[in-house]
Amino acid sequence: MAWLNPCACGIDVHAHVVPEAFPAYLGKTLPAPWPTTAHAPDAQGLCHRHVLVQGKHYRTVSEKCWSAPRRLADLPDMGIATQVVSPMPELLSYWLELADAQPLIRFLNETTAALCAESAGRMLGLAAVPLQDIGAAIAELAYAVRSLGLVGVEVGSNVNGTAIGDPRFEPFFAACVELDVPVFVHALKPAGMERLVGPAALQQVLAYPTDVGLAAASVITGGLLQRLPALRMAFSHGGGTLPMLLPRLQQGWQVFPALAQGMAQSPQEQARRLYFDTLVFDAPALRYLIDCFGEQALMLGTDYPFNFHERRPLARLHEAGLSAATCDALAFENARRFLGRSPTSSKELP
Amino acid sequence: MAWLNPCACGIDVHAHVVPEAFPAYLGKTLPAPWPTTAHAPDAQGLCHRHVLVQGKHYRTVSEKCWSAPRRLADLPDMGIATQVVSPMPELLSYWLELADAQPLIRFLNETTAALCAESAGRMLGLAAVPLQDIGAAIAELAYAVRSLGLVGVEVGSNVNGTAIGDPRFEPFFAACVELDVPVFVHALKPAGMERLVGPAALQQVLAYPTDVGLAAASVITGGLLQRLPALRMAFSHGGGTLPMLLPRLQQGWQVFPALAQGMAQSPQEQARRLYFDTLVFDAPALRYLIDCFGEQALMLGTDYPFNFHERRPLARLHEAGLSAATCDALAFENARRFLGRSPTSSKELP
Repeated sequence: MAWLNPCACGIDVHAHVVPEAFPAYLGKTLPAPWPTTAHAPDAQGLCHRHVLVQGKHYRTVSEKCWSAPRRLADLPDMGIATQVVSPMPELLSYWLELADAQPLIRFLNETTAALCAESAGRMLGLAAVPLQDIGAAIAELAYAVRSLGLVGVEVGSNVNGTAIGDPRFEPFFAACVELDVPVFVHALKPAGMERLVGPAALQQVLAYPTDVGLAAASVITGGLLQRLPALRMAFSHGGGTLPMLLPRLQQGWQVFPALAQGMAQSPQEQARRLYFDTLVFDAPALRYLIDCFGEQALMLGTDYPFNFHERRPLARLHEAGLSAATCDALAFENARRFLGRSPTSSKELP
Repeated sequence: MAWLNPCACGIDVHAHVVPEAFPAYLGKTLPAPWPTTAHAPDAQGLCHRHVLVQGKHYRTVSEKCWSAPRRLADLPDMGIATQVVSPMPELLSYWLELADAQPLIRFLNETTAALCAESAGRMLGLAAVPLQDIGAAIAELAYAVRSLGLVGVEVGSNVNGTAIGDPRFEPFFAACVELDVPVFVHALKPAGMERLVGPAALQQVLAYPTDVGLAAASVITGGLLQRLPALRMAFSHGGGTLPMLLPRLQQGWQVFPALAQGMAQSPQEQARRLYFDTLVFDAPALRYLIDCFGEQALMLGTDYPFNFHERRPLARLHEAGLSAATCDALAFENARRFLGRSPTSSKELP
């Protein structure tokens, strides 16, 4: 391998924020699935908090979720220059009444913006939006981008069970094109839970990539990119299971007239216009992602700072035996294009 | 490519049977999800039948589903010497009352056995069993193997929504080991249907591989192979989405103590003890299957004679640029081992 990155140049598009505390619930629906945090014992020299939703333990997280200095201290060892941060998806709150979701989501966006403001430009924030109401989601996105300085949006792989490629969400994505901001699709409340045999962690391990794969497929079969060719949309966890679904979808498109109808661009062509993170923990899988989607499609993703995160995203590129040019593309060039900050763009990364 | 198979030597482990007609329903539950067939217009010079379940159209199939001469005429062009045939999974009838399922499943097994008997040994049959009752399933398997000459069993990826790796099915798989017969796991009534955006064909195209992937993962996380190391179990559609789930499951096994607990063998080690068909319609995907599972794990599968089937299974091996030894392994050697008919076995293929 010739490519040995001389400095920490990577852009990580998949990292999360959790606020240290949440505002008290002031809504009218009781009980509401509103998040709170509670003290947890320190561990590894770090302050921890339990995150509870409707009083039930969801996850225990460390201060790396909300402390800019703690995060910035970790970036060089990971080879990361710029971290794109988005809320822990369980906070996206599509399942709350809109009147409850709006203040919570505004609080999340302000928290994300404040974290980024402390980072001297090394963290860029993605907004949350209340997709249970398309109009409200568009309004929040415009506010988050124009007034808070967030650079894009994170959405769930599904909204209350409806895959993100469903045409009902198209006006929101049209607004993303209008605002010239990228969309990061993250697994959320996944399908397939009833098929898991084992501990609760299998939700994250198996059902998350399953839901992301189905979400990405829904964007292709729903024709979103055909109608919004300028949309920049990325999927978490390497697109989840999409890389195994795609060849079969391509073949199905050739076999079933109902599937080909209205889909002028083949599934494989469409997939190459999407973006995916590299969060697959495995060299052969990463090489297969490149075969599947092309090297222009992939960007570093780590899931930092959660327990189950990629600690050495650049080393994974080395292990996959990629060329120096491909490593550069995956480490930062594609992310710059996704973020609208490529050399040909008017915006610039710091 | 040096390997040009001089004769039709392939063993296809994934091909289906549909009876031309079904016995009348004589049970007591009305309405019952019982299959019937109805005349359909001839097409491409072939007699066709509509298959209906509870009076509702499920699929239209050709006489290739039940005619031995028609099937045998197609095998040479596909490079297939031996076809392992199993019922169309929608006929497995786990959702019927046991008293209704038993005569239907016996009829299926007799139909499969009769088809094979007409084939001069070129077709080998897999049994259906009523897995809604483990004892009845074991009894039917024993009858099908000992009295009807079937050589293994087809099971669904789930039984009425419970993944096939759930410990409740283990006594059945212990009986498979006892009878020394292989198990072929096929997608059935899949999870993820609520995430599809597009025509009905997406069930087969996207949800089938999703359910197979979760089923194979359930066998690994449920520890079935650890308790039944002699079990020979194969998964349809290249294991569906498992190849993308597996690296993440491997990483999760290293990160989450609850997942590692009781799983002495890593997920990747376990996966290499399973079998998978090659039905992925794509050279890079096939090469990735080999990276993922090893070349000892893969066997030809075509889904013959349905519309959405692989018409040139051997050409796919060529296109993937595999060595001659690997092609032989995938074309027939692994299938012989799976079927218990390897050179070291007492049984022989014709």
